[in-house]
Amino acid sequence: MRAHPKNAAERAPAGRFTISVDAMGGDRGPAAVVAGMADSAAHHPEMDFIVHGDSALLKPLIGRKQVLNGRCRIRHARDVVSMDDKPSQVMRNGQETSMWAAIDAVRAGEAATAVSCGNTGALMAISMLRLRKLPGVNRPAIACLWPSRNPGGFNVMLDVGADIRADERDLLQYALMGASYARNGLGIARPRIGLLNVGTEEFKGRPELKRAGDLIAANAPRADFEYVGFIEGGDIPSARVDVIVTDGFTGNVALKTGEGTASLIRAFLREAFEATPLSRIAALLAMTSLRRLNRRIDPRRVNGGVFLGLNGTVVKSHGSADATGVSAALGLALQLARSGFSEKLAARVASAAAQGKDTKGENKGGAGG
Amino acid sequence: MRAHPKNAAERAPAGRFTISVDAMGGDRGPAAVVAGMADSAAHHPEMDFIVHGDSALLKPLIGRKQVLNGRCRIRHARDVVSMDDKPSQVMRNGQETSMWAAIDAVRAGEAATAVSCGNTGALMAISMLRLRKLPGVNRPAIACLWPSRNPGGFNVMLDVGADIRADERDLLQYALMGASYARNGLGIARPRIGLLNVGTEEFKGRPELKRAGDLIAANAPRADFEYVGFIEGGDIPSARVDVIVTDGFTGNVALKTGEGTASLIRAFLREAFEATPLSRIAALLAMTSLRRLNRRIDPRRVNGGVFLGLNGTVVKSHGSADATGVSAALGLALQLARSGFSEKLAARVASAAAQGKDTKGENKGGAGG
Repeated sequence: MRAHPKNAAERAPAGRFTISVDAMGGDRGPAAVVAGMADSAAHHPEMDFIVHGDSALLKPLIGRKQVLNGRCRIRHARDVVSMDDKPSQVMRNGQETSMWAAIDAVRAGEAATAVSCGNTGALMAISMLRLRKLPGVNRPAIACLWPSRNPGGFNVMLDVGADIRADERDLLQYALMGASYARNGLGIARPRIGLLNVGTEEFKGRPELKRAGDLIAANAPRADFEYVGFIEGGDIPSARVDVIVTDGFTGNVALKTGEGTASLIRAFLREAFEATPLSRIAALLAMTSLRRLNRRIDPRRVNGGVFLGLNGTVVKSHGSADATGVSAALGLALQLARSGFSEKLAARVASAAAQGKDTKGENKGGAGG
Repeated sequence: MRAHPKNAAERAPAGRFTISVDAMGGDRGPAAVVAGMADSAAHHPEMDFIVHGDSALLKPLIGRKQVLNGRCRIRHARDVVSMDDKPSQVMRNGQETSMWAAIDAVRAGEAATAVSCGNTGALMAISMLRLRKLPGVNRPAIACLWPSRNPGGFNVMLDVGADIRADERDLLQYALMGASYARNGLGIARPRIGLLNVGTEEFKGRPELKRAGDLIAANAPRADFEYVGFIEGGDIPSARVDVIVTDGFTGNVALKTGEGTASLIRAFLREAFEATPLSRIAALLAMTSLRRLNRRIDPRRVNGGVFLGLNGTVVKSHGSADATGVSAALGLALQLARSGFSEKLAARVASAAAQGKDTKGENKGGAGG
């Protein structure tokens, strides 16, 4: 389906895409964000930026990067959302922050996607307030990428922390949104969706998961994904699925457990290779192999949680992201802008909602979304 | 506190400990179980066995192992619980299975601890039916070991799948049982306990977790553990805690996610070292370092989920455990038997229950449990 005329991609000069960047929120400050912009801009000549933050800081930082020349509009913002700010405070008093302005540029249709390294709770609160939920969506979700055995190298999991509860209708919406994200973000034509559960026989998980499974299965043919049924934690990085659907509590615990395990193994690997003089020599010889491993599990490469279910797309980069991490988040934002993801997702959700009301209606508009 | 006179340790000849072994349940059959028994028996001369299963199979297998000579009593069992059997069926018709007999030997006080590689759901169902819950325990739990940055190398997590729900009283009991397990199984005098939650600011997790945190904190001084508060998934393998408390749904997802992540990284590591002829040479030189890593994250070394909250201790070994895995589970069972864990745990839980009824009562019996 074609995007509706107000969308950002259509306002931008043909073939160019504008990303709205909150330059202030991350742990490493605006220098890391601008370095990430420069890196991403060098890879993607079609990418422009609206950059929000302290212009006295940003102007010289951006001025020093040749590749950003003529591709950035700087918007001064007086305030910054800190990592300790409560979302409720920011919703009341955050109008002058760079984060708020970054979201508002998407709201105004000036940019296709917003990117921020700031406080997740505050970013979700501002995004909900300014962009509003898509019609038909009850709970927005945060989707993350997970290194996997699939050919593309990644699976999608949602929700990983937008909300701590989800009923069966929410889980169905996560399935629809996750399928659309996998199609547009990862280029998987017919994503396979699994519902995260535990596998202890008769206790087969929670009753709402049984109902959610039935709902998702019923919607699969029409929404153009495959439902593979219940999966367990061990299947998250597997080639059995492309999209893992779960509530935000379980998803957040799983995401952080996976990150914690990977970081533990990296530390053990380092210690193993530093244990003796001989093992240090072995490490030198194994350097290329270890680098190859690191590239596959480098958390910076999967940087970018995407907020789904709003009128506009927001990419949340890790607070501690360096230039490589920011660049990955911007690349993801560009890919989603280029595919017209926001509009396709909206059509998908609207189509499913209409379908829920009138099961006889045929919707052609959602195809490919 | 001293164990009460009926317990198995006191019935056995002084300084000897009898483990009840279900030899039939695992994926690799009785040969792997008997090989694990031989390995464990060689390390622990104080260990005896009652072995349950098909005696026609077991006799020659055991006869071939010199180290088991005179240390095994074989009990013929006609039936076997398969991995596909439903727990409810096994509870009704499982009286002739090796699993049932293995649990009944603990019930009769003939063995201190039972070990099985069989179907988890069936093992829990039979254990509940035959051993009964400890007075004061509402939901039993399964505790697992997790490789960690702590000096001992392991943390404890529970529940990892006995039940899919847990309210705040259950979570308090998990804290008490987990602390007792860490003391007696891992030798940690004053375990640090964390409650698994998500860290998204004002949504600070589920309301029952707030209440559970308050309850656990209030019981910490008397029960001789330290409560460190809420932790996130990334803290599970950390040195911040010794025991992670959570409901069985979340714990099971976290456990399997951690295992899945570790196995993905092992596969990537293997591929990285097999990518080119040069990297294969590097792998040879790095062999010792890689073995050192593997020893630290080898899932067989942490083999053995322990059922807590019953009148007796049951160790569940992985269904796919080989001799090394079975040996690790038997070693854990011995350690728990040697410490008089079942009796100490019962005293702990009884003391906390009495404390709940009469906050003025002082219980000296639970000290050290």
